[in-house]
Amino acid sequence: MKVDDFDAWTRSELDAVEAALDAWVPADAPAGVGVAMRYGVLDGGKRLRPLLVLAACEAVGGSREAAMRAACAVELIHAYSLVHDDMPCMDNDVLRRGKPTVHVQFGEAQAMLAGDAMQALAFEVLTPDAGVAPALQARLCSLLARAAGHAGMAGGQAIDLASIGKPLDEAALRDMHRRKTGALLQASVLMGAACGDTTPASWAALSDYGSAIGLAFQVVDDILDVTQASETLGKTAGKDLHHNKPTYVSVLGLDAARRHADELRDQAHAALQRSGLADALRLAILADKVVERHS
Amino acid sequence: MKVDDFDAWTRSELDAVEAALDAWVPADAPAGVGVAMRYGVLDGGKRLRPLLVLAACEAVGGSREAAMRAACAVELIHAYSLVHDDMPCMDNDVLRRGKPTVHVQFGEAQAMLAGDAMQALAFEVLTPDAGVAPALQARLCSLLARAAGHAGMAGGQAIDLASIGKPLDEAALRDMHRRKTGALLQASVLMGAACGDTTPASWAALSDYGSAIGLAFQVVDDILDVTQASETLGKTAGKDLHHNKPTYVSVLGLDAARRHADELRDQAHAALQRSGLADALRLAILADKVVERHS
Repeated sequence: MKVDDFDAWTRSELDAVEAALDAWVPADAPAGVGVAMRYGVLDGGKRLRPLLVLAACEAVGGSREAAMRAACAVELIHAYSLVHDDMPCMDNDVLRRGKPTVHVQFGEAQAMLAGDAMQALAFEVLTPDAGVAPALQARLCSLLARAAGHAGMAGGQAIDLASIGKPLDEAALRDMHRRKTGALLQASVLMGAACGDTTPASWAALSDYGSAIGLAFQVVDDILDVTQASETLGKTAGKDLHHNKPTYVSVLGLDAARRHADELRDQAHAALQRSGLADALRLAILADKVVERHS
Repeated sequence: MKVDDFDAWTRSELDAVEAALDAWVPADAPAGVGVAMRYGVLDGGKRLRPLLVLAACEAVGGSREAAMRAACAVELIHAYSLVHDDMPCMDNDVLRRGKPTVHVQFGEAQAMLAGDAMQALAFEVLTPDAGVAPALQARLCSLLARAAGHAGMAGGQAIDLASIGKPLDEAALRDMHRRKTGALLQASVLMGAACGDTTPASWAALSDYGSAIGLAFQVVDDILDVTQASETLGKTAGKDLHHNKPTYVSVLGLDAARRHADELRDQAHAALQRSGLADALRLAILADKVVERHS
């Protein structure tokens, strides 16, 4: 597989994910909530989580139907978290992916409801009447609920809120980011892997891979927040600094943060080696893509 | 079964639900989000939805372990919806079950996160590693996600928001309440029924029962909002009138609203007759209890 193939694969998969989300997020849901949901999830973002689901599923030879549902479900959770995170009581952000945020466009109440409905829809997408084995449906719901909830993403956001203006050491920062960002990225890999058969050793290695790129993603995000302008980023730059939030750059410094991102990429590659999977090249390239954003 | 037995059954089941929720909602979740979740869901409310789940499960001879999880999951969804609904951008309510609302107690950001985490936890509770058949886990997640999402509760809340100050006819009011309140009450009955075996005819009759009491509950809620004082209600009374929201009382008048609640109770009883279930007495009494609140 050449890198050209990877880019073609990415384009093709992103089109498929977009079409699936377009079909599942209903424009005609009552009183505009569907319109707000579509605004929040369609036509935006890098779709890293869906690509991880689909690449992991491919690496284990899993069910395409299940993986496409998992890819959309995890993106719905990610998108809802951004909608809520941007609201005035949280980060109070007005710009996301180069567009006004959902609450700016539709009002705060509709933004909260749209986010709530997006989370419910994620679990609806995972539990069709047919096409995905019921035991796999349950497994996917379990992985997603744990990654999204108090021990994962929502808990990480609570730490994030509580840490504004406070010095965190690297261990506390890592714990926050493992939950806030890492848990859902790791779940993306594992949900893809759950769509096929894996040995316990492969599963553990894929879990390590997901953990490493989950953290790498956040380290790079922290780097980009200080090195890039808002127009390149598509969201408000420098906002962590502005909100006086601890970041990998503020804790480690810029050079050490870059080195740490590279180490995490190497850990992700090593985990793929340990997985024993014959065709994990796309997962390896995804790890590179996560980290090369900073250079 | 005597009415005394019903009261004893209710007390015993409420204790069991409270103990289960206490065990599942973690006090030690990061940065206080678990404390806010517990404040929002423990030690409050009539627990009508859990009682419906448990009574329906009993009527079909279903799995107690699955039904207790379903009972807690549906209560977590209900409780999260109240936490979000009370926030300033929605109903801006400061009193709930006689206590300050979650955002008054913990701040808006924590209230939003706690609600988000409660929704995720509902699906986590439904998907244990063991103890509930995976196919039943998937079915319960499916019923709950559809009732909570854009076509159900969240969609109904969007209509509610959009209808402030607007005249709604009875059909539009019914559609709003079937989604906003009715969907989750109906899902409670069906989730309980899913824990056992039912014929298609019994399932359809239980669905009709759930639909009737779901609507009856809201009609009675609208009646209580104008006839009771805040201290009896445990929340701010007269708030629908205050918010200029259409209600069954404003659309039908008080007497006709009371007659409508009684009709819906009778429809619920008739549906139980059609269900052919030998032991549906507790469901019948629950229908009475829903409606007799207004008299």
